[in-house]
Amino acid sequence: MKQDSSAGLKDQFNIGICGMGTVGGGTFTLLQDNQTEITRRLGRSLKVSHVASRRQNPLYDTEGVRFSTDVFAVADDPEVDILVEVLGGTEPALSLIMRAIENGKHVVTANKALIAVHGNAIFAAAKRKGVTVAYESAVAGGIPIIKALREGLAANSIQWLAGIINGTGNFILTEMAEKGRSFAEVLKEAQALGYAEADPTFDVEGIDAAHKLTILASNAFGISLQFDKVYTEGISKVTTEDVNYAAELGYRIKHLGITRMTDKGIEMRVHPTLISDRRLIANVNGVMNAVVVKGDSVGSTLYYGAGAGAKATASSVVADLIDIVRSCGSEARSNSGNVPSLAFDSLRSDIPILKIEDIECEFYLRLSVQDKIGVMAQISRLLTDHGINIEALIQKEPDASQGGDAFVPIVIVTGRVLESQMNKAIAAMEALEQVVEKITRIRIEQFDGEGN
Amino acid sequence: MKQDSSAGLKDQFNIGICGMGTVGGGTFTLLQDNQTEITRRLGRSLKVSHVASRRQNPLYDTEGVRFSTDVFAVADDPEVDILVEVLGGTEPALSLIMRAIENGKHVVTANKALIAVHGNAIFAAAKRKGVTVAYESAVAGGIPIIKALREGLAANSIQWLAGIINGTGNFILTEMAEKGRSFAEVLKEAQALGYAEADPTFDVEGIDAAHKLTILASNAFGISLQFDKVYTEGISKVTTEDVNYAAELGYRIKHLGITRMTDKGIEMRVHPTLISDRRLIANVNGVMNAVVVKGDSVGSTLYYGAGAGAKATASSVVADLIDIVRSCGSEARSNSGNVPSLAFDSLRSDIPILKIEDIECEFYLRLSVQDKIGVMAQISRLLTDHGINIEALIQKEPDASQGGDAFVPIVIVTGRVLESQMNKAIAAMEALEQVVEKITRIRIEQFDGEGN
Repeated sequence: MKQDSSAGLKDQFNIGICGMGTVGGGTFTLLQDNQTEITRRLGRSLKVSHVASRRQNPLYDTEGVRFSTDVFAVADDPEVDILVEVLGGTEPALSLIMRAIENGKHVVTANKALIAVHGNAIFAAAKRKGVTVAYESAVAGGIPIIKALREGLAANSIQWLAGIINGTGNFILTEMAEKGRSFAEVLKEAQALGYAEADPTFDVEGIDAAHKLTILASNAFGISLQFDKVYTEGISKVTTEDVNYAAELGYRIKHLGITRMTDKGIEMRVHPTLISDRRLIANVNGVMNAVVVKGDSVGSTLYYGAGAGAKATASSVVADLIDIVRSCGSEARSNSGNVPSLAFDSLRSDIPILKIEDIECEFYLRLSVQDKIGVMAQISRLLTDHGINIEALIQKEPDASQGGDAFVPIVIVTGRVLESQMNKAIAAMEALEQVVEKITRIRIEQFDGEGN
Repeated sequence: MKQDSSAGLKDQFNIGICGMGTVGGGTFTLLQDNQTEITRRLGRSLKVSHVASRRQNPLYDTEGVRFSTDVFAVADDPEVDILVEVLGGTEPALSLIMRAIENGKHVVTANKALIAVHGNAIFAAAKRKGVTVAYESAVAGGIPIIKALREGLAANSIQWLAGIINGTGNFILTEMAEKGRSFAEVLKEAQALGYAEADPTFDVEGIDAAHKLTILASNAFGISLQFDKVYTEGISKVTTEDVNYAAELGYRIKHLGITRMTDKGIEMRVHPTLISDRRLIANVNGVMNAVVVKGDSVGSTLYYGAGAGAKATASSVVADLIDIVRSCGSEARSNSGNVPSLAFDSLRSDIPILKIEDIECEFYLRLSVQDKIGVMAQISRLLTDHGINIEALIQKEPDASQGGDAFVPIVIVTGRVLESQMNKAIAAMEALEQVVEKITRIRIEQFDGEGN
């Protein structure tokens, strides 16, 4: 490896890419396409010296680059300074990253599931060896949200953040809202367009968003990664009916990941959420992502961009590479004076993560009731008995086409109430003879402070 | 100064604040209020050891902190590691910063005018001495936009960016659009609310935005700061009439700073701009700021937040302090392996900045004409003769209250055309006897690519 002796800085960094799928290929291509610009920024160069994947991907011309079918060959390659892990999944990704760290290499990964579940062990190993494990691309694709949280807002006590952090889910909800299409129909299209996986569970049931929220919460509050404590609810039960009622009430339904510091502990939750259509984040449509962060000093800030795709994700992978190189002086493999993996030099372990039952929210409720005198009075009384205010109400005429026994939909917007209390109120209402279906509940977020 | 011998890291950094006005006081307060959180992030502490201002500000309890009425005492204080310049204006700010650099101190400044006009000399001096001059707070207040450009999007060739980067101007335009109020009336209120200075020229005539745009353009494209080449046009001539016609056509009028890389050179311009009301940035209202950045890999990203105010600005000042400390190992005063001041290790000097006449735009035109047969035909022919397409048109009935000689407003949205060509067309139209007033022109931006 050449050294620029005048400045004492290493002048070329060798990159090993493990995985040549969408993100790996995108990273390889971006490093080629923008080589001149990147070198001009860095004053040093990034060179892909080793690529590993199960088989050569004919889409990419890797001539002159060492190729291995065994990804561990990259972790063991003494020429490689930084290993890029874009395999996805747990194994061999986890062992590969641990091996690279053990060998004193920096690591860049886009693997949100791996960081959310095994990040604590990975970061501890990296700290011991004095290397960096960077993962900007793991959350919200091309949006530099980890950087904003860890560095840009580092002067703040973060109060809460809320994000549209799964593009597939947002595409589905947008289509439902704008075109009145059903969940199932849009999901099918999303799969055809390649947005959603053949098994869409990770996207639509909120698991992918929960992985990302776990990472965001740790960076916001300086706590270890606790994926198993995220309350996770998908969007598969959201109906066009709910989308339309929400619009009538001045709301949009978005699939949000929310984390908030409260006096009692930290909220971490992913669920469909009504937000005022005046909010900027309510107008983030299609596959785009956005995260609102509320800091005690800066107020609300919002970060918007493409949350997925080869090029957007590669943008963050390569930004991580550039960051690592910028933090290295003459020593390629050591930058211990740097930004902590989870934003804080020391993590707190004394803050409980709240159960969903212990979280306070406003609620959207949709009931289907028999069209009989006194039903609304009974429901109102039950809510009042449980200490729940009615803030808004829609009661429609019965559907004439269903004849005399028609059911009437009632939509209620409540005041703030503990989820556990709402559970009791819903159980009591569902016990009423006139309430003919399971009650739909969707949480509402007003956020605090103005303008976002 | 104590050293943490185990890690070899200096464990306390002494901060000197020059200027105890809004931003200086906000910075002082934030460093106190969030001291615990900041120390937990850094693993090291930030201590205000010296404060200088013309007189003691009774709002802040600086007991135990060295106080000087001469700001240069801070630059000469051997205990101070980082000097915060929040005086504003050119002198003594410029001499102060140069003295601090000469003395081997890092500098954090919120002084946009100073950086835009004297930044090249300041950064050259800092590079020679191996210290950092950070200025996140100089652009868009609390939004970490410099960090996003220099680091988060560092893998991209930036294609263009456009920002609402003056909160006062955006407040005025928002009030005009939402409440139908006049420019003069809202300006008066903004002054009463403390948003606008007694002399509002810097805000409403676009000079403040041009300072910020200069800084953004250099960070986007890696060019030296060239404030004198920004085309600058204010919002003082925007009428409620134009705001209303724009709305009718599906646009909002925003005061944008725009910079774009083209085949012919770089555009740098600040002017009122029509943008589609479907764009996220068109819905950024009140005093809030937002910047859209288009990178070749990431696509469009947007950054939104408070562009001014003591707390938001202090958030960025302190983030810069944290950045500097994180980049320093055992040596407090040297971090040469770091992010370049203007994002690029080497700046390009071969790219011309385009004159406004050489920039292509779509245009909104508003004419006042005599209500006579054939006027519209003449105008259409003149536009066609100059190679200009009409994309949309509003022609209203004459105002009956003005009697038979009433003037009729005509609003035209044109296709893309060079400004120089539009100048000729406007001159030709204004030469028509039936065109009774100076023609109003406002540039339109569609941006390219979808979704922002």
